[in-house]
Amino acid sequence: MLYGGVEAGGTKFVCAVGDRQGRILAERRFPTTTPEETLSQVVAFFRHASEAYGLKFSAVGVVSFGPADVDPESPNYGEIGATPKEGWEGTNIAAFVHRALRLPVVFDTDVNGAVWGEARWGAAQGLRTVLYITVGTGVGGGAIVEGNLLHGLRHPEMGHLIVPHDRVRDPFAGICPFHGDCLEGLASGTALALRWGRPAEDLPSEHPAWSLEAHYLALAVTSYILTLAPQRIIIGGGVMRQPILLPLIRAKVPRLLGGYCPLTPMERYLVPPTLGDRAGVLGAIALAIDAAKRR
Amino acid sequence: MLYGGVEAGGTKFVCAVGDRQGRILAERRFPTTTPEETLSQVVAFFRHASEAYGLKFSAVGVVSFGPADVDPESPNYGEIGATPKEGWEGTNIAAFVHRALRLPVVFDTDVNGAVWGEARWGAAQGLRTVLYITVGTGVGGGAIVEGNLLHGLRHPEMGHLIVPHDRVRDPFAGICPFHGDCLEGLASGTALALRWGRPAEDLPSEHPAWSLEAHYLALAVTSYILTLAPQRIIIGGGVMRQPILLPLIRAKVPRLLGGYCPLTPMERYLVPPTLGDRAGVLGAIALAIDAAKRR
Repeated sequence: MLYGGVEAGGTKFVCAVGDRQGRILAERRFPTTTPEETLSQVVAFFRHASEAYGLKFSAVGVVSFGPADVDPESPNYGEIGATPKEGWEGTNIAAFVHRALRLPVVFDTDVNGAVWGEARWGAAQGLRTVLYITVGTGVGGGAIVEGNLLHGLRHPEMGHLIVPHDRVRDPFAGICPFHGDCLEGLASGTALALRWGRPAEDLPSEHPAWSLEAHYLALAVTSYILTLAPQRIIIGGGVMRQPILLPLIRAKVPRLLGGYCPLTPMERYLVPPTLGDRAGVLGAIALAIDAAKRR
Repeated sequence: MLYGGVEAGGTKFVCAVGDRQGRILAERRFPTTTPEETLSQVVAFFRHASEAYGLKFSAVGVVSFGPADVDPESPNYGEIGATPKEGWEGTNIAAFVHRALRLPVVFDTDVNGAVWGEARWGAAQGLRTVLYITVGTGVGGGAIVEGNLLHGLRHPEMGHLIVPHDRVRDPFAGICPFHGDCLEGLASGTALALRWGRPAEDLPSEHPAWSLEAHYLALAVTSYILTLAPQRIIIGGGVMRQPILLPLIRAKVPRLLGGYCPLTPMERYLVPPTLGDRAGVLGAIALAIDAAKRR
């Protein structure tokens, strides 16, 4: 049997066909355009894969950008909420895929997908409480708590955490349309590019941007530790590609904790994703496997 | 059958005998002195109750101040960690009670006890993801996430959350021995008393202390919402007895969220405990009932 995975991003979609062991048999990436065009490509990919392998799909997992309705009890399960991404508000991705392919579709957030993928086949195997943070165009977080994906009331919005903003050291106002200087407003790739006048990938490791970036991310990581007590934190996303950044954060977090929470060595506690940019789509496949098992 | 509950506090202990419905048949409160004296009183209370009712106990739940080892797999399960409370570091409360009474003993944090009690018989019935915050001498938080008590790595330390400290408006340095101006350092009853020169209960509702206190607590509540997405937040503790405080926090949180997370009306979202100062001991009894069921 085959399992389908979709990572629906605001910029691009990733579709993959996987087996029970998380081996990827086929994969396709394409830019996010209109809902109709993009979702038709998703459906075409899976139809084609099914024919190519002569195998049926058991289920499809979709993990998506948000805000999104991830409550299986809700009539709008699978629907994108108020997003600035034009044309997508009100689009029900799960329902579209389900109707077209007549398969069970399970739906969650992109960050929950990533943490679920890392827990099954990556850096969080065997752990019961884990946090995944992504620092890219925006900032987001997903968590597994005592073995279950954290949903709560709709879903967390960890990227919008309040962090102390030192306006003397950093007069930049922040770019979050909701909060100004929340974590995403101060530390996302978008914020970095606007504050320093060039994209994050063009800022050399000796640039003062990175010390400030590490400061904000360490403050957030510390607050997440105090609130969620994860056994491990996985931190990924485009901004983390700057190699100096992770060591800087690792150095700051224990100082901010003030020795209060004894942690395993930071090199094993705060780690990059091992599934790279496939964490989300592999998490979607893992969710599909789980959904097929439950039936 | 009877179920025992113990809330072990740094200042006082509460012991109670309950039935399956959470009715309290007997209760005793006494000050926390040395471990030997205090725990002997706990044991004497339950022995006496067992004789008085002619009934046996199925199990005892103990919820405790921390830091505490709440991992059932740990060899030190039930033990108090590095606490400033003299004589208590290294005391294993659960083991003491278990040895003396020869009963199954289940052990958790005081704040997890309170949220478990409120979920069973109080303000959080029927909810899967709930947060309990107590603002007293210190600040602490316990949570249920998707139906399970949050433990993670040891247990959270939500009271030590990092909140922005406006030193212009509030030059008070904070009293946390670990972090200075973390939430507990700025907003605990201890901090209030030191900042304003008199205990919280003597500060009238028109005193500027309360607007500042609401500011810090609203910042923390907002960060907890963004991280944990609880379906409801219960907030109690001695400092919350000032009646102006809860309405002030309720007014500030939606502004801090910036309309980002749609909440039920704040009056139903951020609520006082309905079990009052019995939440902890009732949670301990609920844990004992669960433990007896599992056997």
